[in-house]
Amino acid sequence: MSAARGPGTGDDARWTAAAVALSERGRGRTTPNPNVGCLIVKDGRVVGRGWTQPGGRPHAEAMALEQAGAAAEGATVYVTLEPCAHESPRGPACADLLIRARPARIVAALTDPDPRTAGKGFARLREAGIAVTEGVSADLARRAMAGFLTRQALGRPHVTLKLATSLDGRIALPSGESRWITGAEARAHGHLERARADAILVGRGTFEADAPRLDVRLAGLEDRSPARFVLSRRSCGGRSPSSDGSASGTSLEMDPCLRRGDDWGWLDSHQAISSLPANHLLIEGGAGAASAFLAADLVDRLLLYRAPILIGDGRACIGDIGLGSLADAHGCWALTDARSLGTDRLEIYERKR
Amino acid sequence: MSAARGPGTGDDARWTAAAVALSERGRGRTTPNPNVGCLIVKDGRVVGRGWTQPGGRPHAEAMALEQAGAAAEGATVYVTLEPCAHESPRGPACADLLIRARPARIVAALTDPDPRTAGKGFARLREAGIAVTEGVSADLARRAMAGFLTRQALGRPHVTLKLATSLDGRIALPSGESRWITGAEARAHGHLERARADAILVGRGTFEADAPRLDVRLAGLEDRSPARFVLSRRSCGGRSPSSDGSASGTSLEMDPCLRRGDDWGWLDSHQAISSLPANHLLIEGGAGAASAFLAADLVDRLLLYRAPILIGDGRACIGDIGLGSLADAHGCWALTDARSLGTDRLEIYERKR
Repeated sequence: MSAARGPGTGDDARWTAAAVALSERGRGRTTPNPNVGCLIVKDGRVVGRGWTQPGGRPHAEAMALEQAGAAAEGATVYVTLEPCAHESPRGPACADLLIRARPARIVAALTDPDPRTAGKGFARLREAGIAVTEGVSADLARRAMAGFLTRQALGRPHVTLKLATSLDGRIALPSGESRWITGAEARAHGHLERARADAILVGRGTFEADAPRLDVRLAGLEDRSPARFVLSRRSCGGRSPSSDGSASGTSLEMDPCLRRGDDWGWLDSHQAISSLPANHLLIEGGAGAASAFLAADLVDRLLLYRAPILIGDGRACIGDIGLGSLADAHGCWALTDARSLGTDRLEIYERKR
Repeated sequence: MSAARGPGTGDDARWTAAAVALSERGRGRTTPNPNVGCLIVKDGRVVGRGWTQPGGRPHAEAMALEQAGAAAEGATVYVTLEPCAHESPRGPACADLLIRARPARIVAALTDPDPRTAGKGFARLREAGIAVTEGVSADLARRAMAGFLTRQALGRPHVTLKLATSLDGRIALPSGESRWITGAEARAHGHLERARADAILVGRGTFEADAPRLDVRLAGLEDRSPARFVLSRRSCGGRSPSSDGSASGTSLEMDPCLRRGDDWGWLDSHQAISSLPANHLLIEGGAGAASAFLAADLVDRLLLYRAPILIGDGRACIGDIGLGSLADAHGCWALTDARSLGTDRLEIYERKR
């Protein structure tokens, strides 16, 4: 522990990484706000911890400062995103709260891309005589807040596609038998990923065939079940020409919106996906929904659960994604994590371009 | 190095593992003999090294003893398989050679399953006053000599199936475009695996469409290209009832034997595969040949090269393998190795049952 008490860069990285871990507690519940984590450290001891609360308020800094009380004075505040500089009807600006609490130093991972803050938070803190270090553990923070950052940059949720396949990429036998390909550990991890999403989406075929619950069945996380949406079947693999020819103009074609008497939502257009009240969207199947999102270049992260089995003839995990040549397929995905879950393997790929 | 000079079990394991590494030099070239490795160590120094030579003779022990000369007296001989007890027109029994050389001790990984030796080698050495330790690094040795051991146990070569796919299990676009899915490093590793096989087999479709060279194009290993065989197309996925209902009775149905004017051989029956002059057989594609061997339960090891790309609609890596239910698919394969090759991943699975 003594090493953690020094003021060096190694400590900054370690404490900021701890703040990122705290930020994960809010993931999937803070839309439209970012899920931020904050840690206040004084003389090598943590005196306050905070993370964005469900619904987006209180902010992480407000929660940590509340915990720290007078101990925040002269302390170091580790935070995963630039403290907000704008007041809102829902609460004061975090920059102002921090200036009032008089910490000696702020260490932050990322600048807030929200134009209402975008550097103004840091500037105001520095003007108040507080030392500010930026960019520490930025990659970790970017991953944890991918939803908020994608929405700021592209105007849509960060999209994770989950595939659970055999070694040969099948998700079912020709008969449709699909329970189970992966084992209990992999399925539990899938539930954890649900808890990290604000919204979950399946294709109409999966919805009608399996009537999936899509809830989080993990002890202690039952209240983390995401909002559920269905993609119209007619849209699967659909691709419409973009008005300006740019990649961001790619859209999903969908049936007119349908609504049912239960708590499912139906998505009917690219606009609907953009306006989905979700920073993190998880696509859970089937092949039609997966292909539609891939063809529209709307997948940012791939969760690939694979069981050590071979199926041969059967149902493919994805269908037509509009690939013209192998050259177009390369360079899109980078493996960023891999682990064993029982006898299954999980690989996580992230979009490269 | 000092630790390696003691007489402990740790040293036995380390030296025997080194003998296994030597044995790999003969792999793919010793049929019908096992590819054995041998190391003679005296006072912590290696005084002789040997591995089964191309064609199966000289044996590893004979080569190592020749190198050691008089230094073998009082030394420890590490060998991956029980020294043979039977004389042959091609040379004397290794047990006799060893007795003549008077080492103090023999450390061996495996007992020879060949009924002509099967314990007689160890017995003769012990009778001659040489201490014998058995079973050291047995798993490593079993993997290195899988071909010989499979032939002894099942009367057929050890079969490795190579698959090179996208993340979704495709080996080509709908157009047939398949060059390249995996990158240069993965393809080089594939050539190394060719060098470790005595024989290589493709399906008739692959043979006729691609006219693959199937040689080893790695500097220094050009002479290690395996014998090449073609499986008749009509057999793909074929399964014939076994006469006695046992798994070993499963066979491949093939067209009558065809012979061409080049150096390719055509396999026409299960008997032909059993009588193939090969300890290690590598199946390189396409989906038909892969499916035929899987359906006949003739695959012992799976080399799965995967590129970080998604193809969607396209050609599957395997077709019908006669799977009746998901339950039958489970419990067959264990992941035994995994590594990165450039941006591709290689996973090696081995048969569990």
